[in-house]
Amino acid sequence: MEYLSKNKIKWIRSLHQKKVSELENLFIVEGEKSVFEGLKHASSQLEIIVCTESFSHEIPNQFSNKLFLVHAKELEQVSSLKTPNKCLAVFKKKPYSISKVGLSLVLDGVQDPGNMGTILRLADWFGVTQLVCSEDTVDCYNSKVIQASMGAIYRIPVHYVNLDFFLMQSSLPKYGAMLSGENFRSVPYEKNALLIMGNEGNGVRPSIEKQITKAVTIPRIGEAESLNVATATAILLAEITK
Amino acid sequence: MEYLSKNKIKWIRSLHQKKVSELENLFIVEGEKSVFEGLKHASSQLEIIVCTESFSHEIPNQFSNKLFLVHAKELEQVSSLKTPNKCLAVFKKKPYSISKVGLSLVLDGVQDPGNMGTILRLADWFGVTQLVCSEDTVDCYNSKVIQASMGAIYRIPVHYVNLDFFLMQSSLPKYGAMLSGENFRSVPYEKNALLIMGNEGNGVRPSIEKQITKAVTIPRIGEAESLNVATATAILLAEITK
Repeated sequence: MEYLSKNKIKWIRSLHQKKVSELENLFIVEGEKSVFEGLKHASSQLEIIVCTESFSHEIPNQFSNKLFLVHAKELEQVSSLKTPNKCLAVFKKKPYSISKVGLSLVLDGVQDPGNMGTILRLADWFGVTQLVCSEDTVDCYNSKVIQASMGAIYRIPVHYVNLDFFLMQSSLPKYGAMLSGENFRSVPYEKNALLIMGNEGNGVRPSIEKQITKAVTIPRIGEAESLNVATATAILLAEITK
Repeated sequence: MEYLSKNKIKWIRSLHQKKVSELENLFIVEGEKSVFEGLKHASSQLEIIVCTESFSHEIPNQFSNKLFLVHAKELEQVSSLKTPNKCLAVFKKKPYSISKVGLSLVLDGVQDPGNMGTILRLADWFGVTQLVCSEDTVDCYNSKVIQASMGAIYRIPVHYVNLDFFLMQSSLPKYGAMLSGENFRSVPYEKNALLIMGNEGNGVRPSIEKQITKAVTIPRIGEAESLNVATATAILLAEITK
């Protein structure tokens, strides 16, 4: 097995930049668990896998032609984590086209990587077709998103689009999570539809709100000011897909 | 207004230790938003509030006798955050006794502060009576928990107990979130009850599982391996409290 060259180290480090990652159509996966999920669910997309010698024995043989060794110090250099894990991998992004079938989740400016990852995991659990995100929504290839998605990043298509335009030309029913709307339990949901969730602090922005065909609300019983966007998504998905 | 003394700086720093915080029955709140929520909802519990001079004008006058100024450098010293906010406060813990009325959430070893905070926020939204936690559940006064709770920490009582013993001597129905159980939608829930949620990786531990009187499950439609404990709590609370 070869050791990782200086040039490859540079190249991996450059992939942490969103621009480079987009240009090369590749993304970095850090952390044992997320890497193994990738090997299991997206092995054809694997570009390169990098780990310390002691950990290399845990990588299945079939990937040995893509496996490079690094010293612990170098792993620190290529990692974005403060306490780097034992391995890191680079995967090709999968090309997807937007589907009009089933339930799609539409995210309008969700910012927190943990929320985005949790929403991906929920989408994966509830059989959501895809995520369609505004251009200012957090990057789904952010390493915190990948970790929180628990493998969903390899299965759920994510699109970044001009949301105003996307919604305008879609004829599907557009459910939107709002603080004032119809009780989410009394709405007869259609199978092919869009569920729109807004930004953590500001909710859905006005131009998007205008395009909602049915505003839905989760009634409050206690005193909290609002629900977290990922937990609200959980409650709505459980109801819509039931 | 007085500047914070060296001794008070030491004292606040010591409160970051769980043992000291327990002994003194006090907890630290960091970050503008959480501090203001405390001033609003728990002003009688306020012990001391600390901020930079430029920020002091934003603190309502009624708290001026508890307000101390610090230099930015000192705020860094008393803060546990990497990029400290503009203020920090110390509050008295509120004494609560365990209630047998309404729905209580029982946490068996939840570890992640973000999950715990989100669960508190959910409890606050859905009018949950209290949280009853195993002794190894993450400390609810952890600063990340407080931030994620969005003020719920001031309203929802949290108890740490020997869970085996607590459940044994409770005659309330004990619903438990499990991967194999009855569909959570077909259970006729009682009003006074316990909902038991397990640890992120391992779920509910065997000795606790034995005491569950009704295991409930959120059916999976897609491919994800599991749901995050906070999102599962969200879905179950929405159903049980409807």
